[in-house]
Amino acid sequence: MKRKYSVILGNLGNTCDRFCSGYKDNPGTMAMLKRAAAIPHVQGIELVGTWDIRPDNLREMKRALKGHGLECVSIIPDLFADKRYWKGSYSAVDPKVRRLALDYTRQMCEIARELGCRTMNLWPGQDGYDYLLCADYERQREWLCDSVAKLADAFPDLRFALEYKPKEPRTHSYLARMADTLLLAQETGCSNVGVTIDTGHAYVGGEVVGEAIVLAKRAGDRLFHMHFNDNHGSWDDDMIVGSVHTVCYLETLYWLDRCGYDGWLSMDQYPYREDAAGAIGESILWLRQFDKILQKHRKAIDQLVTGGDAIKTSAFLRRVLT
Amino acid sequence: MKRKYSVILGNLGNTCDRFCSGYKDNPGTMAMLKRAAAIPHVQGIELVGTWDIRPDNLREMKRALKGHGLECVSIIPDLFADKRYWKGSYSAVDPKVRRLALDYTRQMCEIARELGCRTMNLWPGQDGYDYLLCADYERQREWLCDSVAKLADAFPDLRFALEYKPKEPRTHSYLARMADTLLLAQETGCSNVGVTIDTGHAYVGGEVVGEAIVLAKRAGDRLFHMHFNDNHGSWDDDMIVGSVHTVCYLETLYWLDRCGYDGWLSMDQYPYREDAAGAIGESILWLRQFDKILQKHRKAIDQLVTGGDAIKTSAFLRRVLT
Amino acid sequence: MKRKYSVILGNLGNTCDRFCSGYKDNPGTMAMLKRAAAIPHVQGIELVGTWDIRPDNLREMKRALKGHGLECVSIIPDLFADKRYWKGSYSAVDPKVRRLALDYTRQMCEIARELGCRTMNLWPGQDGYDYLLCADYERQREWLCDSVAKLADAFPDLRFALEYKPKEPRTHSYLARMADTLLLAQETGCSNVGVTIDTGHAYVGGEVVGEAIVLAKRAGDRLFHMHFNDNHGSWDDDMIVGSVHTVCYLETLYWLDRCGYDGWLSMDQYPYREDAAGAIGESILWLRQFDKILQKHRKAIDQLVTGGDAIKTSAFLRRVLT
Amino acid sequence: MKRKYSVILGNLGNTCDRFCSGYKDNPGTMAMLKRAAAIPHVQGIELVGTWDIRPDNLREMKRALKGHGLECVSIIPDLFADKRYWKGSYSAVDPKVRRLALDYTRQMCEIARELGCRTMNLWPGQDGYDYLLCADYERQREWLCDSVAKLADAFPDLRFALEYKPKEPRTHSYLARMADTLLLAQETGCSNVGVTIDTGHAYVGGEVVGEAIVLAKRAGDRLFHMHFNDNHGSWDDDMIVGSVHTVCYLETLYWLDRCGYDGWLSMDQYPYREDAAGAIGESILWLRQFDKILQKHRKAIDQLVTGGDAIKTSAFLRRVLT
Repeated sequence: MKRKYSVILGNLGNTCDRFCSGYKDNPGTMAMLKRAAAIPHVQGIELVGTWDIRPDNLREMKRALKGHGLECVSIIPDLFADKRYWKGSYSAVDPKVRRLALDYTRQMCEIARELGCRTMNLWPGQDGYDYLLCADYERQREWLCDSVAKLADAFPDLRFALEYKPKEPRTHSYLARMADTLLLAQETGCSNVGVTIDTGHAYVGGEVVGEAIVLAKRAGDRLFHMHFNDNHGSWDDDMIVGSVHTVCYLETLYWLDRCGYDGWLSMDQYPYREDAAGAIGESILWLRQFDKILQKHRKAIDQLVTGGDAIKTSAFLRRVLT
Repeated sequence: MKRKYSVILGNLGNTCDRFCSGYKDNPGTMAMLKRAAAIPHVQGIELVGTWDIRPDNLREMKRALKGHGLECVSIIPDLFADKRYWKGSYSAVDPKVRRLALDYTRQMCEIARELGCRTMNLWPGQDGYDYLLCADYERQREWLCDSVAKLADAFPDLRFALEYKPKEPRTHSYLARMADTLLLAQETGCSNVGVTIDTGHAYVGGEVVGEAIVLAKRAGDRLFHMHFNDNHGSWDDDMIVGSVHTVCYLETLYWLDRCGYDGWLSMDQYPYREDAAGAIGESILWLRQFDKILQKHRKAIDQLVTGGDAIKTSAFLRRVLT
Repeated sequence: MKRKYSVILGNLGNTCDRFCSGYKDNPGTMAMLKRAAAIPHVQGIELVGTWDIRPDNLREMKRALKGHGLECVSIIPDLFADKRYWKGSYSAVDPKVRRLALDYTRQMCEIARELGCRTMNLWPGQDGYDYLLCADYERQREWLCDSVAKLADAFPDLRFALEYKPKEPRTHSYLARMADTLLLAQETGCSNVGVTIDTGHAYVGGEVVGEAIVLAKRAGDRLFHMHFNDNHGSWDDDMIVGSVHTVCYLETLYWLDRCGYDGWLSMDQYPYREDAAGAIGESILWLRQFDKILQKHRKAIDQLVTGGDAIKTSAFLRRVLT
Repeated sequence: MKRKYSVILGNLGNTCDRFCSGYKDNPGTMAMLKRAAAIPHVQGIELVGTWDIRPDNLREMKRALKGHGLECVSIIPDLFADKRYWKGSYSAVDPKVRRLALDYTRQMCEIARELGCRTMNLWPGQDGYDYLLCADYERQREWLCDSVAKLADAFPDLRFALEYKPKEPRTHSYLARMADTLLLAQETGCSNVGVTIDTGHAYVGGEVVGEAIVLAKRAGDRLFHMHFNDNHGSWDDDMIVGSVHTVCYLETLYWLDRCGYDGWLSMDQYPYREDAAGAIGESILWLRQFDKILQKHRKAIDQLVTGGDAIKTSAFLRRVLT
């Protein structure tokens, strides 16, 4: 399968955390686009709603993407930086906030159509809870499900990829891992609702990405999108692919192919103190190397996966990785 | 709702770990039963297959249970201590092992019927994997699903409660958390396949039990059974309820009621260095206290859960807990 | 022992995270001070350098503190929000940055003297590393040690309390847990270098606070300061005391007394979506309740700690907590 | 530096966990020795006291080691499998148990002398606690320190390497991480008390091994011994080196050299379901490959560590690892 690499535009911008409001300066949207386009092998871009793309810059963006030869891979509505969603968006207790989130997302869906983009990457990061005995899990999950279903019904030509993450910014997210996100996708009754795996979110959630891919396959072929990064295992550090883990990326690519994934491999990093284009470029180069190993040894890996002999797998990995 | 407390018989027995083969002596099955029956408020018993219950002691067990006024709450087939299942039972690559696991479980189902027990608690602890690139997640999950479906079809009068756990004895279990277990339960197409929550397994999996209960409710009312214990958060320490966590047990009981759970509250501990009956008895007494708080303040808790104000919840908890 | 409660002033201000630049509005320093003073039982304030206290507002602050009847408990130099320290302060590879950090801290020490404050709470949050094979642990730790020693030598009338934290904002901090911080404190050769325990940082680091207190005692009575908050165990959620954990706070107070700690109990929270004064006030009220239990049952707790019988401890806790 | 590889003899034996009493059969000591000797590059053996080595088989063992051309690298007194130490050995509340542990260890020290072995690897796995408010951390740590000091004083020609581990078999170990173990080593006042790093224990403890090595260096050159294995990060899975992590082993070898470690690289695995000799042999072959990379690129790595540029480090790692 031909790999297609993309990047979330905002990765090229300023970085901050709750202590420091900015480690870098923020280049403008078009400057970031230029930098992204210059990263080797990047063919697509994901745009964050409001920040990168709005009705007022739609035409300009369309032209710019064309100029750079880039495809708009997904639009990510901003449901996390707008403080009106501080206690949830699609699942907010306040019906006005839920309506706001829906109206806003619909607007972004229209923009996606204009850009010829088929995938909405929904990360409802504020939808969750912080404290025990402070949330009605039942009703809020129902609202979350209803909202997504409404969108999916209204835009049958688009695919809604729900991005899960165990925590941050809330201590607990409603869409926390692959399996609970699949349950919700199924509950919507819409075949155009699926899942985005962010590899780092999966690690924090204790998942093996290869197994998560299989879960999505079995639940109606619902893996719609992939975000790549690495971390130290306990938090969404959003680091360069391959900087902590190695073997699991090879396994991930293997299972993507086995399950027939033909979507984008998108980089989603947060290079706090690194040159952004350099850090993102590294991730792509690592993935290309892992892919090369996979292409060359697919048969051997098939046998290792079937054989279940850790020593043979180790010997193989040792040979291809050192 | 009237709470019913039970205990897994083996909790009263010897304890060991991979370093020390026995911290205690092993009383016989009937001696353990006597001790269990003497724990205040215990009305039911869970029996581990082969260890506690076999065709050859079925009659004796039936009599003994009656003698002690105890109900058989569930049978837990031994799919974890028998070394023939060392690389999986229902999902084993070897079809002979899968058949063995099915035949054995069927035998245990027959025994359950004899004992008037309606619930089979299936914990396929060996069904999982240890190393990356060493397991065919797709086929093994399929086998696991098929096996459970076969059992559920064959015994429509029994309920099959799948007990999930993120790891141990394998580094990764196929049934790891509530949501993936629900997906599998749904895939079987059988309404008599559901889930057992072990509170400690949930903590290790990063779950809030209250939310897990809601997931099961929404996925077709599939919460069939509850195991209680506590731990320090990163491993299945199987400790006395309330020894580490407090608030979450109150929340758990609240959501059990809200979701209409009317099953058993069963203690599943591993008192390595403690008097077993004493440790189990403590857990029940803690749960009864939490229940008392809940009964008295249910309305207030309803409002806190709806209100979503962490300060009000804190003030309430402070009042009832200190 | 008489408990003294204080709060970090900034807790009353705006809250943000890396996604959302502000969930609240930022009241001015003096407005925050007024709010802090109004929280029941608060007698002291910790001031963050530059943000809350500078040469230019020193007089005003002194007057305001006096007016509110508040003591300045510590000054926390801002070594984490100033982007010049983005790759470390006292341990930065660049000697100019290390000098800057030292000069700045000295200025803050002078201010502390002016305010009659004896404790500098040093949290070198940017001193650490993110990636493997990207830091010279040996030389950087040496620089960190030298810097602290220089400060402690220059201000022998002040106490330098090093606040440890396993991660955030770096993926790894040089001062990560109690024991490594004690090693560094000892390496300085200065008896006025000690440690601040932040309970939440300790939980994230896998520590039992009671044991950490004992470590500090044994290493030369080096527990200088206490920050209180709660979290879900894997991240510095900075929540209200008692909202997740219960028993460990009682144990913490017990060991503080056993080890002769007579310093402040300071609240350090980050009430993202809560009323700040309310959330902080709750923590103090929880601690006062735990303290009441301790005062009443100290003898009993002495015996439980010596006895080592988990069942007796459980029975005691059940009695006092429900 | 010339690497010397060894293995703990018991790794070749039966494996079990708390559920299954044996996944394999147990070959005898001499059969295991033969298998260990046949693993390529193994030159040394660690013997567990009582299990592998006792006064009654000392002569035979001496002869066998000589016959196989193997050196006895360390003796590991059995302080973890003997149920008399179920509540601690050197730190047990019961003085008779502490005496027993000391007498037994002394006997093992004598045997070490007889075998020409200079290192006692002390893993007091039962010394810790399970429940809160159930242990006197202060007195027990004192006892632990005293016991180790007594041994170190009595056998000044031997080195006592304390092996730390955050948890298991207790929920909390007194020797949990590098830094607290160094504090205790220093408290003994004996220069022949140091530390064993088990890489997997370090990962579970949230440590970067390279940094732990530096801590030991700075605390008086106290790194005495190394145990190697890999795991998934949250538990001591005792897997083949390189099966989960990659980069950190290269970094570990780099820092071992930078800090002048010239001891053994010993394999400590627990191949539950794998051929033991094969699994151990794999780990050694991985380490030899990492070592080859290090030897070839040491200068480059020096610069990366000094430079602190994650992108350059990534590019280097990508080149040497794929």
